[in-house]
Amino acid sequence: MKHIEFSDVKITGGHWRTRQAINRDVTVGAIYEKFKDTRFNALKCEWKEGDPNFPHIFWDSDVAKWMEGASYILTSSENNEILQIIEQTMKTIMEHSDENGYFNSHFNVKYQNERFWHRCEHELYCAGHLIEAAVAYYNLTGKTEFLNAMCKYADYIEKCFKKEKWPHFTTPGHPEIELALMRLYKATGVKRYADLAKHFIDEHGMQHPNDSFLYSWATNLYNQDDVPVRERNTADGHCVRALYLLCGMADVALEYNDNELKEACKRCFDNIVSKRMYITGGLGSTNLGEAFTIDYDLPNRTAYAETCAAIALAFFSNRMLSLEADAKYADAVERTMYNGIMSGISLDGKAFFYENPLEVDPDFNDRNPATTNKDHYPLTQRLELFGCSCCPPNVMRFVASIGGYIYGYDEDTVFVNQYIESEFDVNGTKIKQITKYPENGKVHISCLSDKKYIAVRIPFWCENFKINHSYTTKNGYAIIELGGNTEIDLDFDMPVRLMCANRRVHSDAGRVAVMRGPVVYCAEGVDNGKDISSVAIDINSKFEISDSEFLLPVLKTAGYRPPESESLYSDASDNYEKIPLTLIPFYAFANRGATEMTVWLLRK
Amino acid sequence: MKHIEFSDVKITGGHWRTRQAINRDVTVGAIYEKFKDTRFNALKCEWKEGDPNFPHIFWDSDVAKWMEGASYILTSSENNEILQIIEQTMKTIMEHSDENGYFNSHFNVKYQNERFWHRCEHELYCAGHLIEAAVAYYNLTGKTEFLNAMCKYADYIEKCFKKEKWPHFTTPGHPEIELALMRLYKATGVKRYADLAKHFIDEHGMQHPNDSFLYSWATNLYNQDDVPVRERNTADGHCVRALYLLCGMADVALEYNDNELKEACKRCFDNIVSKRMYITGGLGSTNLGEAFTIDYDLPNRTAYAETCAAIALAFFSNRMLSLEADAKYADAVERTMYNGIMSGISLDGKAFFYENPLEVDPDFNDRNPATTNKDHYPLTQRLELFGCSCCPPNVMRFVASIGGYIYGYDEDTVFVNQYIESEFDVNGTKIKQITKYPENGKVHISCLSDKKYIAVRIPFWCENFKINHSYTTKNGYAIIELGGNTEIDLDFDMPVRLMCANRRVHSDAGRVAVMRGPVVYCAEGVDNGKDISSVAIDINSKFEISDSEFLLPVLKTAGYRPPESESLYSDASDNYEKIPLTLIPFYAFANRGATEMTVWLLRK
Repeated sequence: MKHIEFSDVKITGGHWRTRQAINRDVTVGAIYEKFKDTRFNALKCEWKEGDPNFPHIFWDSDVAKWMEGASYILTSSENNEILQIIEQTMKTIMEHSDENGYFNSHFNVKYQNERFWHRCEHELYCAGHLIEAAVAYYNLTGKTEFLNAMCKYADYIEKCFKKEKWPHFTTPGHPEIELALMRLYKATGVKRYADLAKHFIDEHGMQHPNDSFLYSWATNLYNQDDVPVRERNTADGHCVRALYLLCGMADVALEYNDNELKEACKRCFDNIVSKRMYITGGLGSTNLGEAFTIDYDLPNRTAYAETCAAIALAFFSNRMLSLEADAKYADAVERTMYNGIMSGISLDGKAFFYENPLEVDPDFNDRNPATTNKDHYPLTQRLELFGCSCCPPNVMRFVASIGGYIYGYDEDTVFVNQYIESEFDVNGTKIKQITKYPENGKVHISCLSDKKYIAVRIPFWCENFKINHSYTTKNGYAIIELGGNTEIDLDFDMPVRLMCANRRVHSDAGRVAVMRGPVVYCAEGVDNGKDISSVAIDINSKFEISDSEFLLPVLKTAGYRPPESESLYSDASDNYEKIPLTLIPFYAFANRGATEMTVWLLRK
Repeated sequence: MKHIEFSDVKITGGHWRTRQAINRDVTVGAIYEKFKDTRFNALKCEWKEGDPNFPHIFWDSDVAKWMEGASYILTSSENNEILQIIEQTMKTIMEHSDENGYFNSHFNVKYQNERFWHRCEHELYCAGHLIEAAVAYYNLTGKTEFLNAMCKYADYIEKCFKKEKWPHFTTPGHPEIELALMRLYKATGVKRYADLAKHFIDEHGMQHPNDSFLYSWATNLYNQDDVPVRERNTADGHCVRALYLLCGMADVALEYNDNELKEACKRCFDNIVSKRMYITGGLGSTNLGEAFTIDYDLPNRTAYAETCAAIALAFFSNRMLSLEADAKYADAVERTMYNGIMSGISLDGKAFFYENPLEVDPDFNDRNPATTNKDHYPLTQRLELFGCSCCPPNVMRFVASIGGYIYGYDEDTVFVNQYIESEFDVNGTKIKQITKYPENGKVHISCLSDKKYIAVRIPFWCENFKINHSYTTKNGYAIIELGGNTEIDLDFDMPVRLMCANRRVHSDAGRVAVMRGPVVYCAEGVDNGKDISSVAIDINSKFEISDSEFLLPVLKTAGYRPPESESLYSDASDNYEKIPLTLIPFYAFANRGATEMTVWLLRK
């Protein structure tokens, strides 16, 4: 399946139109303001010993992701001020690039003699993001100057890593260059860049590098160095690294028709979604190494579930869809885009979570010395900036490019992967989709196409649905024959569903999560009082669905709360107080001050 | 209340007689064999640069605790070989002590110029344990040579810390010297030692020391430096440090009739037992700093619950009983002695747990990089030795001195604090207690005493009981008037009870723990199959009580297990398989190979 590019798709209404408006009107400016004096300023390479704001190893990537996301935003809306910032930034980068194309603000100002010495200091990661920014800007404007500069940089990387094989390391500690080179190849047609991406993929895990980093107990896993990529069976180590590597692997598998690589990608995808993924689509069970741990280990209160990892799951899943037209990949995108990704940004678009736990207790998270990264504190309140501020511009570029997840096509079929009010008219296919999904499950699609079939995804959460055409099903899609302008009405029955986890997930044992459509719900203390983790719900509960301030409806039902007690331990009893229970979309948690939150409610 | 010393009490039958026999016949020799080439050898101070087995900062204390425990064992049984090891060890220590009394194998062989420089390098901790060993040997033999050597050491400590106030630190990072000096005072009658203990107590928390250690976020809490001891309201930081300090505080409060200090001890005790203690009596909610965290934070799978901390709770509680004749202190001893302490040693007496989690999954504990101290791995199997091997000799000295927890007296009352088959004849009181407790709740006590009353504790777990005399109740004791030889029959009704935790304990929400008498039970995979954490129990279950290989009975009932599933998330249902469920005493877990275990079972 080939995807219809986001730039060809117009989002015309609904949830994502609102999200994109906030992204365009608030987020892009808010992030720039927070980055201006540090990350943007660093690109001037004027830092001297004794100055504040020494350029951090990954600051260039923060700017690059902002440039990429801003370019996406400008694709559907004009904003000269933002455009000028992008272009001025490119100019600054080109002015401070070497003759050979190399640019990195951190190494330029202090460690000129240590370029490509340190595997885990993010040079290739930053380079990859600069390349993605260059491709985005080129696609927006058609202007080639910055793209050419990045080609030169890529040529230099090819020289150092592939031709001359510099001695310090062979593959990056943090993948990203691989998928970026594949994008550069697609933008320029220069096959060498794909070959270089494949080179990095082929080399990854082929040896245990000298220059490893952090967590000696897990270094090899941390950087996905434990096995060659084609032998990989599970997703391990640092989640974002793992998923960015998988993106590169999927891209290379497709380009080179590399079945071994494709099978490894499939095994890892299946391992993630069937054993290592939170119900929100969040990834990362521990803050130690921001990492996967083992199958079925999904603790809620100490979940890491980094926003960037959820985004990376969408990146990877959409690439898998290119390799194999199976709805399960679009399902994974849907699960994470309504939950684990969008919990990463406040409803007003200004503040961000790095970690997205499925249970929050302000006492525990803010005072317990055993919890996660202090840089991301408190977990009860989104922050406008982090020391490591990778997530904010990542959410921005994801939201701006959501249109790229909706439609695809192959020889004879056009695919509808996501239900978002939108339209496009490309390559002989014209589609108009009208829906309030996921507010409800009704979708109207008008399609005029020279393809024979339209395949509409049957969402993973849906048991009953109606289609006003005859259809067959294949790989999770309903396939309908096209004939002239075809008007399709889909009605996905969207009841509230109470989900349980596999019995091997200790943390969710005896608990249920409430979903409606793809949206995972949670209970917050501000609505439901204290000790939310002890409140039980009857699995046969009825729910009232009400409009809300949270973009999607809230759910109301009854809960059962045990009595307060002075004693730490007492006789078990059946004393419960019946209380009204309000559930809000998980992505909307922590928008009303510090309060308890839980996704997994006890079963009564 | 004054305690009857363990040396005056003869354990004549039942659970603890068996435990003491194993301690005497197996444990004392097994630990010595493991310590011989490292810890014992280190005392010779022959280590040279390049040699293996550089004396660790706390090795002296391991030997000292062994000497103390071995002396206790010899109080009720002869063993010349063990006695010779003790005496040879003392001789070695004295030979390598300075003129001024100082001894520490670590500092003697390498850091002679850094004595008393490093607050957290355990010099005063080791000194304290050597003093306790000297007191134990003196009490056993009446010989004073080693006691005098330790007095000289204590005099030197007084000179450095109290008189000359050496500049590097004012109070020890790891308390122990305080309680040891109080024991030295009681053995010698030299009040200066009590005064020195009081000095350390008074100074603790009065300033934030320069020489702190580890965990910058929590250093002050870690070492109990956050507030002066008399202002302490909660038990914080490293559990063993906290509890050893509290022991010293309680001793000093009693000796100096220091009400402020006594009230601080009471507040901390209440904080522990009502908010920070596992149902097993285990203490320590995180491996980070081996520490308390916050109220009601009692995770099961990552519980630290160090064996030494459970023992220290017994030490502290028994001291609180001296300050105040309230049965709640003896209750805490009973809870921890049947559960959190004895889980620390294998049934054969040879191997030990450092950590005592309330839930074990071999997959999780052995493969998850996020879990606890690798030195203590695997948590599915007790080890004969740890790098930090404080717990084994601590269990040994506790078991050998269990007799000291049973009886006490004040002006007009003799107290029975624990129900253990035993007898004593001291100070005009003669008691013979016959019981199989806690196999059942029947206790017969014959008492001939010049006291007016006998106070028998009503155990915390007991709701119904019969006594063959009229009685009044006070502070958890039934008080019976004595008249000549009094024959008392106690019958504590001991049904199986299902306990729940306070609703603020997130980790135990929706779960119940099974107790019978003071004994906490657990379910192991070896008896009950996989995924024990997902097995539910009806709170109205009936239990069959059967004899077992685990010293106390096992319980049999029905459990309810959800079906296996391929999917990670699926619809919640009421499908359960009814299975036979076998519960064994918690202390006996992990004696039959690597297997799952849980104390807290789901409620059906």
